[in-house]
This record gives sequence, structure tokens and C-alpha cells, in this order.
Amino acid sequence: MQRYYVKEDAWQGDTVILTDEDAHHIKRVMRQQIGDEIICNHPNGEAAHCSIIEINDNDVRVQVLEWLAADNELPVHVTIVQGLPKGSKLELILQKGTELGASSFQLFEADRSVAKWDEKKTANRFKRYNKIIKEASEQCHRNIMPELHDVRSLKQILSGSDTYDYVLFGYEETAKQQYNHSFSNILKKIHPGQSILFIIGPEGGFSKAEVELLETYDAQSVRLGKRILRTETASLYALASISYHFEELSD
Amino acid sequence: MQRYYVKEDAWQGDTVILTDEDAHHIKRVMRQQIGDEIICNHPNGEAAHCSIIEINDNDVRVQVLEWLAADNELPVHVTIVQGLPKGSKLELILQKGTELGASSFQLFEADRSVAKWDEKKTANRFKRYNKIIKEASEQCHRNIMPELHDVRSLKQILSGSDTYDYVLFGYEETAKQQYNHSFSNILKKIHPGQSILFIIGPEGGFSKAEVELLETYDAQSVRLGKRILRTETASLYALASISYHFEELSD
Repeated sequence: MQRYYVKEDAWQGDTVILTDEDAHHIKRVMRQQIGDEIICNHPNGEAAHCSIIEINDNDVRVQVLEWLAADNELPVHVTIVQGLPKGSKLELILQKGTELGASSFQLFEADRSVAKWDEKKTANRFKRYNKIIKEASEQCHRNIMPELHDVRSLKQILSGSDTYDYVLFGYEETAKQQYNHSFSNILKKIHPGQSILFIIGPEGGFSKAEVELLETYDAQSVRLGKRILRTETASLYALASISYHFEELSD
Repeated sequence: MQRYYVKEDAWQGDTVILTDEDAHHIKRVMRQQIGDEIICNHPNGEAAHCSIIEINDNDVRVQVLEWLAADNELPVHVTIVQGLPKGSKLELILQKGTELGASSFQLFEADRSVAKWDEKKTANRFKRYNKIIKEASEQCHRNIMPELHDVRSLKQILSGSDTYDYVLFGYEETAKQQYNHSFSNILKKIHPGQSILFIIGPEGGFSKAEVELLETYDAQSVRLGKRILRTETASLYALASISYHFEELSD
């Protein structure tokens, strides 16, 4: 059943009013009729099984039939902070990161980012990126749609990092060492409901200055297995391991 | 330092003779000179730090300086068996699967594979796929280059599966259940050195007949976290979790 992420003000008692792209999708793409059923997700993470009661020129109205119990969210909140990568890698990171349970995404222009962020293109790019996140959320039945935050500097991000329980970064140099930077030693300390800010460098990794800055803010470096991962694989490894640790290992 | 995977017959005592693409890469792409250093990997998984001693028209000869101790291989051998997916997803699976430590890859045309395998294009496709695997192996410092096996039917693959210690399959239906199909319960039984055949369906998942066939061969279904993953994400989740379980959790 098709799933839609519906803004708070569209929920009016037992009725949900879908507009714009969602209404277009229901009418033109799915060609649905009165009586057909969809799932609507509330921004609080709850989801309802709904039936279409009105199809108008500008909106589609549905009635809540029942609230669904399924919770498909990771037990910990993970924000992926990604140093701007080259080409279409960011799209892969957003799509796969959404499937694997990221709570939100934050981009930064790293010292070694080859790609530069073009302020003029921000609106269009964010529109495309949010579409990728939305479609991935629907496809894998996320309760919430991950948020894509505005691009900020690493320093700005770290300045606000005290709202997170843990600040981690994937550091290539750590992967080469046999020391005790094991990812699991950190995950074992984290409890469901806590939050992780997970910072990943671009293709060339973090600069010396960035590593020093990360350490100033007590960010902990972690090893993501023994092999050197590409920048776009690091967040996928981190999220899959967090899912495995909290969703599969504890069973 | 650039890494090359060199066939067994090219190793002659302390000298290694690189030919064809590798020789071209050293001479034309890297523009290396006598005295420059590279890493050569032997098919047995060992790697040597080497120095260039001769640059000829048809080959480049290097001398072993020292054998390297690094072992970047997963402690368990994982063969990813992938139902043929659409478009360029297979390339992503091979690249990321190599980075994440797969030992080998096996393709099969599944009942619900939209893409059909074109026998006439096999040679060209395998050439491209092997290039992707080779480049990913070099980039993430694999000791061995994963092997890409010929396309076979699921039945043929399962008939030969008794050489594997564990046969697992990622089953979407299992992801929806809260039962005890936890991936970790299976990984906890597996010891370093053992082998896993991990079977993944195409976009539409396994057909009923395929699930019955898998069960006939005692393949165990596993849940890969709570969210429904796309076909190209399933192998990445499985490999990242196996790496986490054996490389990070045991530390």
C-alpha cells in the first residue's frame, strides 16, 4: 500500500487532506478511486491506514481507518554528517542512509572536498535530495522521513553537537590500527533513545586541522571494519552495524 | 602505494613480472620509474612490497622487498548470490560487496528478475564487472580479489551448496515478523574460517517456488534489520553486519 508523509496541519480529526505532489500522485500516478486505501504517516512517527473519501481538483481527502502499530525506526537516533563527496555519491548516501534508518542528514564542505557547494543551486539540489529521501522512506516503510539540514561548516556543526549523546567520526587511520577503537565498545555504552552524530570525511578523508577540531570537541574516532571504505560506503557500514547491534544482536 | 593482483605464474622467485593492463597502468597511468615501489598481491592472499627493477615494452619487472603482514580479509568466507537486478545495481553490489569483504559473487536469473541475462553479452559484461571488482579490491587493500562465478540457476547453485557451512537467504517476509530469525543467532554459531552462501532475491523478492526450493536445501531465512531493504542494499547490510560481528564485536 502506498505511503505518504503528511504535514501536521493536514490532519484534521479523523480526516487527512493530501495536496500538491501527494494528491497528484494518488490521482494521476496511482489512479486511485474513492474507497481505495493508503497509509498516511504523521510527523510524530505514527502511521494510519486510511481510505479515500473525496477526490477534488486541488486535494484528496482520506479518513483514518486504524492506527498502525509498526515501528520501523532504529532504536537510536543517528545523524549522518557527510563531507561533500563528488558526483552522484551524495544521492546514494541519502537513499541508502534512509533505507538503513538514519534520522537526519547534515552536509559540510570539508577541507578536502573536491566538490564545492554552490549556494545558487541549493534550492534545486535540496528539492532533488528531499525527493530521494521521500521515495526511499516510502519504499522501506519508515515511520518518519529523515530531515536534510542546511549545509554548515564542520565547526558550526560541532558547536551544536552538545545536544547529541555521542559524537563519532570514521577515521581511515583508525582502520589501519589494531588499537582499541572498536566500534562495538562504543555501541555497547549507548542506550535506546540516545542520539549519535556520525561524521564522515569526503574522498580524501579529514585534514589534519579537521581531526584536531574533532578531537577538541571530544569526538571519538571509530574503526569500520578492517578494509578502507570509500566515503559513500562508510555511512552505510555505520548504519548497518548500528541496526545489527540494536535490532538483531539484542534479540 | 598502488596495488596489483598478480597471477601465480608471474611470480618467479623474488621477481614478479607484470604484463598487459597492469604493465600499462604502471608505465602510462602512474608513469612510474625504476626504483619506484608498488604492492603485489599473490593469489594465495599474501602481499609483497616491491621495487621496480625493469621497464620493458611488454612487461614491468619488480623485486620483492618484503612480505606484508596485513590481513584485510573477513574472518569468514562469504559468497554473495544475487538474483539479477535491474540496470546498474549489479555494479554497485559488486563494488560495495568487494569493499565490504565478499569472497566471491554468484549471479542467478531469478523468477522475478526483470532483467534477463543475455548470453551473447556475457563476455563483455564479465570483463566490465571484473574491472569493477579489481579496482575496488585495490582501493580498499583486499588481500584477494573476489571471484565472479558464471551465471547459474538457483537450483544448480543450491545443488553445490553442501561445500558451504551455512546457506542463508535474506527474506523480506522475515523482516516483517518479530520471530526468532535474528541474524545474530546464526552468526553466533559461525566460527572464523567457515563459509557462508548468502542468497538475495531480485527487486520483487523470491517467488514462492524459490522459497520452497531454498527450504528443501535447508537454507535459513534471516532478517536484515526492521526496514524493507532494496535488493542492492541487502548484501551490503549482510556484509557490514558480518564484518561488525567478527571484526569489531569480538575485540
